[in-house]
Amino acid sequence: TLAAPAIAQENKKITWRLTSSFPKSLDTIYGGGETIAKYVREASDGNFEIQVFAAGEIVPGLQAADAVSSGTVEMCHTVPYYYVGKDPTYAMGAAIPFGLNARQTNAWHYYGGGVDLMNEFYATQGFVGFPAGNTGAQMGGWFRKELKTLDDMKGLKMRIAGIAGQIMSKLGVVPQQIAGGDIYPSLEKGVIDGAEWVGPYDDEKLGFVKVAPYYYYPGWWEGGPTVAVFINKDKFEALPKSYQSLLKTAAQAANCDMLASYDYKNPQAIKRLVKDGAKLRAFSQEIMQASYDAALGVYGDISAKNASFKKIYDNQLAFKRDAYLWAQLPEYTFDTFMMIQQRNGTL
Amino acid sequence: TLAAPAIAQENKKITWRLTSSFPKSLDTIYGGGETIAKYVREASDGNFEIQVFAAGEIVPGLQAADAVSSGTVEMCHTVPYYYVGKDPTYAMGAAIPFGLNARQTNAWHYYGGGVDLMNEFYATQGFVGFPAGNTGAQMGGWFRKELKTLDDMKGLKMRIAGIAGQIMSKLGVVPQQIAGGDIYPSLEKGVIDGAEWVGPYDDEKLGFVKVAPYYYYPGWWEGGPTVAVFINKDKFEALPKSYQSLLKTAAQAANCDMLASYDYKNPQAIKRLVKDGAKLRAFSQEIMQASYDAALGVYGDISAKNASFKKIYDNQLAFKRDAYLWAQLPEYTFDTFMMIQQRNGTL
Repeated sequence: TLAAPAIAQENKKITWRLTSSFPKSLDTIYGGGETIAKYVREASDGNFEIQVFAAGEIVPGLQAADAVSSGTVEMCHTVPYYYVGKDPTYAMGAAIPFGLNARQTNAWHYYGGGVDLMNEFYATQGFVGFPAGNTGAQMGGWFRKELKTLDDMKGLKMRIAGIAGQIMSKLGVVPQQIAGGDIYPSLEKGVIDGAEWVGPYDDEKLGFVKVAPYYYYPGWWEGGPTVAVFINKDKFEALPKSYQSLLKTAAQAANCDMLASYDYKNPQAIKRLVKDGAKLRAFSQEIMQASYDAALGVYGDISAKNASFKKIYDNQLAFKRDAYLWAQLPEYTFDTFMMIQQRNGTL
Repeated sequence: TLAAPAIAQENKKITWRLTSSFPKSLDTIYGGGETIAKYVREASDGNFEIQVFAAGEIVPGLQAADAVSSGTVEMCHTVPYYYVGKDPTYAMGAAIPFGLNARQTNAWHYYGGGVDLMNEFYATQGFVGFPAGNTGAQMGGWFRKELKTLDDMKGLKMRIAGIAGQIMSKLGVVPQQIAGGDIYPSLEKGVIDGAEWVGPYDDEKLGFVKVAPYYYYPGWWEGGPTVAVFINKDKFEALPKSYQSLLKTAAQAANCDMLASYDYKNPQAIKRLVKDGAKLRAFSQEIMQASYDAALGVYGDISAKNASFKKIYDNQLAFKRDAYLWAQLPEYTFDTFMMIQQRNGTL
């Protein structure tokens, strides 16, 4: 028989659309989608083109996952916890209140079984998903007045959503769902008393410091939330294997890149905000502990009703216990020592 | 004129050799080289093949950079500070004592100008370099006796190299350079009093707990060292642009991946080590502060003699001051709260 001649195979030309859950003005988190597209475009010599659309250009930001499930777009860049209204299991793919920090989140996703567990769940939603960004621990938000005791939380109207909102409501807070652009006027007019957004670099753009100067930390509901790509399952499986791999590698690189970007920009932004009048305040231990205790109750309630959430929550919890033991040793003591030098002016 | 017909272009078939500075037994750090090779192989459909060789298979681990400069191999996977004997500027590409933690290191490399600054220097050495792994903050090493005061450091024979060795010697420590495989017998016989290696997962394999049970933290000389790829400059520039980009993306993904791997494995390893008799001890504030003060002196001395080091050190220092201010807010307070829950048994 004749040997089949080697035929030069061109890289398959593919154009996809990615809908972002973020506006272009949030350049760091929106930029994560652009970063993935760039990495994929360059490594495929322009043959695998991902067009990135800001929230609202194709579908609203919070409908990104639906657009992927239905095949309206091939993929999206979003935060999985946006979809806890469909199923609280989504939160496990991003962050739960009093969950893992950013590094622990990556450890759990890539080595603790998180990516596989989430994909068992995502498969039921019609897509595959991979970590593709992280903001680091977020701030606790902007408030018109100081919050000192649990009594100060009662009746507080705060812009906060999802599981964190459920927990806050157990403390007497009245959670409000308000779109980004409406937060400032609501705070200004006193329609709400406080609002959480992201962290210094993103918050600065919305100007909250002028109308609600008490800037609290930490955002205990987001210790290190994962931003993810969701990819329509059929479309992903139809990709050449090389493009599947490239997309996953690009997502992991973008995960690293976004955290680095926030970690570089936030230190500068917090200094500007303080200069502009932000009054930094830590949530009191009383408020933190009551929130934590309420969170455990909420997780118990969700787990009792939702086997998918429970399975993943329990898996992550086992790792969390070990991770926060280990974190006390070289990481914490090294950071603590360096922070003391910073405070002493010897850095 | 006739339009030129489209000609299917095959991905260029390339085979490279990567020499690792690590033995296969250090599976996580050695594995970073394999991870890059896998990501590149898969995304290029097997056309860009990087063969990974363990330390000693082509050249000894500490000669990896030379092998790249000379073109013996196309690339290596190594820790830049191994080459401080050639030029202390190398240390800035990995970690300096009392430097940045792992996340800050990435922020500085990718957004603070670190990658570009280091590549100005690497160009003088004949290669390009990119971050491609991180161990996180390391442990401070294993000691036969407790170290309580500065007096306990005087005359202490410790296996420690590079700039950290210089700093230690200012405290009266006698730094020793000993290859990995020789550390255990040296500790056992009392030829040395202590030795630093990496962290629980790697240290466990060498069995130090049996002969030097006092396990100190933090390894203040490695708050988050970057493991890097060095690539021969001419070979890199001769690559197709798509392969250049793929290699950089794969290195950034591998950077994320290695840290996640250590962050998953170390918590388990530290529990096993404690069960096996490791006695965990924090370096005293007295020892830490004296080491820090000595470090500042060493950096002053190096900067006075080496403009390349000084330029990069000064750039990183400006970021470090801001980064350790910001780190005190949501990251530190979130982690602290979670660690308190861990200690209270409420996690």
